[in-house]
Amino acid sequence: MSSYAKRMDNIKGSDIREILKLTQQPDIISFAGGLPAPELFPIEKIKTAAVEVLNKHGRKALQYGPTEGYIPLRNKIVNQVKKFGIDSNYNNILITSGSQQGLDMIAKLYIDPEDVILCESPSYLGALNAFKAYEPKFIEVKTDNNGMLMDDLEVHLKNNEKIKLIYVIPEFQNPTGRTWSVERRKKLVELANKYNVIIVEDNPYGELRFDGQLNPSVKSFDTENKVIYLGTFSKIFCPGYRTAWILASEDIIHKLIFIKQGIDLQTSTIAQYDINEFMEMYDIEEHIKELVSVYRERRNIMLDEMKKTFPKEVIFTYPEGGLFTWVELPERVNTRDLLVKAVEKKVAFVPGGSFFPNGGNECCMRLNYSNMKPDKIKQGVDILSELIKNELK
Amino acid sequence: MSSYAKRMDNIKGSDIREILKLTQQPDIISFAGGLPAPELFPIEKIKTAAVEVLNKHGRKALQYGPTEGYIPLRNKIVNQVKKFGIDSNYNNILITSGSQQGLDMIAKLYIDPEDVILCESPSYLGALNAFKAYEPKFIEVKTDNNGMLMDDLEVHLKNNEKIKLIYVIPEFQNPTGRTWSVERRKKLVELANKYNVIIVEDNPYGELRFDGQLNPSVKSFDTENKVIYLGTFSKIFCPGYRTAWILASEDIIHKLIFIKQGIDLQTSTIAQYDINEFMEMYDIEEHIKELVSVYRERRNIMLDEMKKTFPKEVIFTYPEGGLFTWVELPERVNTRDLLVKAVEKKVAFVPGGSFFPNGGNECCMRLNYSNMKPDKIKQGVDILSELIKNELK
Repeated sequence: MSSYAKRMDNIKGSDIREILKLTQQPDIISFAGGLPAPELFPIEKIKTAAVEVLNKHGRKALQYGPTEGYIPLRNKIVNQVKKFGIDSNYNNILITSGSQQGLDMIAKLYIDPEDVILCESPSYLGALNAFKAYEPKFIEVKTDNNGMLMDDLEVHLKNNEKIKLIYVIPEFQNPTGRTWSVERRKKLVELANKYNVIIVEDNPYGELRFDGQLNPSVKSFDTENKVIYLGTFSKIFCPGYRTAWILASEDIIHKLIFIKQGIDLQTSTIAQYDINEFMEMYDIEEHIKELVSVYRERRNIMLDEMKKTFPKEVIFTYPEGGLFTWVELPERVNTRDLLVKAVEKKVAFVPGGSFFPNGGNECCMRLNYSNMKPDKIKQGVDILSELIKNELK
Repeated sequence: MSSYAKRMDNIKGSDIREILKLTQQPDIISFAGGLPAPELFPIEKIKTAAVEVLNKHGRKALQYGPTEGYIPLRNKIVNQVKKFGIDSNYNNILITSGSQQGLDMIAKLYIDPEDVILCESPSYLGALNAFKAYEPKFIEVKTDNNGMLMDDLEVHLKNNEKIKLIYVIPEFQNPTGRTWSVERRKKLVELANKYNVIIVEDNPYGELRFDGQLNPSVKSFDTENKVIYLGTFSKIFCPGYRTAWILASEDIIHKLIFIKQGIDLQTSTIAQYDINEFMEMYDIEEHIKELVSVYRERRNIMLDEMKKTFPKEVIFTYPEGGLFTWVELPERVNTRDLLVKAVEKKVAFVPGGSFFPNGGNECCMRLNYSNMKPDKIKQGVDILSELIKNELK
């Protein structure tokens, strides 16, 4: 009898995706998903690039292509990651169908049931969901405003033989919006080398920095091929193409290519050609500058309004870039219940509990500021503020 | 220490993909991959549709979308599969990133290590590769020109408790080009009901029928939601979009949606909009008619030339549609060795051994006729013919 596989006990729906459905109603003020601002998609330029691809390369762009991806695009990625101090060549790069696929592939490569994944506490829900299918145990490493606490990390590395991966989002972390100090990044690589463990560095937002200078990536300090780096076009270009990349040593990429052959053969050829052509014809850095300028304003508006209206007991992070701020309410507030009330008032967010793989922390929430326009942001924060005040009464 | 997961012992490179790399050299006559004829891609119409999508729906088409896929496209698929006797609605349909992803997802849903998958002997290499990651055992069921032998199938169903899936390609099978009789299709469903096992029906080529009438699918005889049906736009439109579908009961689709959230969130939004728009603006049936007419001619040319030039000891199938013919050489010939010699003469094919999950049968080969133009087909068959004659000397 065809019963489901054991791993299905771990695979449940994601709060984020269920809420994303809600947010497709046009009158919802959504702080939920990590959606880019659609009004900034460079539609006219994309049209020009897409027509050019079909004129110049139609037969190749619509055909099957190699599993590892389109070489001109991989070369552009080599160039794109230099700003994070990464020195690579196209053989280090495998194109994936979104970074979500990269996370699935990495877990498939390393994780047997009962193996351990270390992650920040809290960490990105989508990554935890990808990993869960491989039946790992999660150990949450303590964090502060400068990233993982290295002492706590080393205690776990010392005491646990089954640790396979350390998953981190050092830049504008999801969900907290926090950024790791450079010192912690260096120390992380040292510890990974010492205990011979792979680091997965997820950097979807790194280029969206509003204040200060770009940081060198963890990968830039990698001396022993211990760091697998993930980047994506979803946040600096458009998520609808589902085009991202894994950057790692050629040995690891080689194994990941075998995995990708089994799971989808290759990422959309025409998506790769379209993005490549856009980058040939236009300056993606100009586009990123525009995103940064708009998102900076939206962060300012959200954070200012939160400062002005949220009760004093409520704590939140001040992100230097990326898409999210993280709110901690007094422990007696349950944000899953709060969400139900908020949605009645047409405001959505993601309850924080989902970001802790081992549960708890139901008093937190993640707020996104990139997707809504300024007046909606103000209005939504004011509604949340009233609801929170009611909870605290 | 981060060693690879146990499943990686099963995940090796695929012959097909390695050979596909070879076939990117422009002077190779490739009978290897299952590549559509690129000169038939409706590039101008696709351009018109793509521009229309960006004009009308740019902000939505470039944004994240729902995991299950774009509803207008799912409705078109409901209509598209009616010709195979399938009665469904859009809730039965989940858009996947190629059928390869569908195969991976189904194995993820059902297969624990040591579970058993029944398949035709031989069966599609790509499916076997997708399944292998989940560490199943394969039992090859005997086949003849009318499909699986039902007696042999029932013996296995009776004697093995761990059977989870029966994987079949009833129409223009890959690699053999054979088509199941309607009687066997009905019997297959009867047995699946009796032994409570899931059937995976893979139908990428069914619409490419050169002679006679379309057959009702196995799914059309499904009375107890035992059949999961896979279809794709890769062979009737363009593979570069990596857009396909799973059609199954709502319960199964619901579980598969959870899985898809973990592995890539969703299939490319813009690919789905582009295909949908193409189907709005143009008649895809007209396009399929053109493919059928060109591929029929190519099949005729290949098969005629094989009849004329191949030695008498060589047996091959006569496909009524699809992309492949299957060649059995005398047992003393090893087609992996033959391939090396053929590639020296600039001809490629896929050695048959790869299509038998439990090994053996190294004297077979799969030939594709859809990708090469008539003069190249003749030339390639003649070269193969000479090489085979040399082997048999």
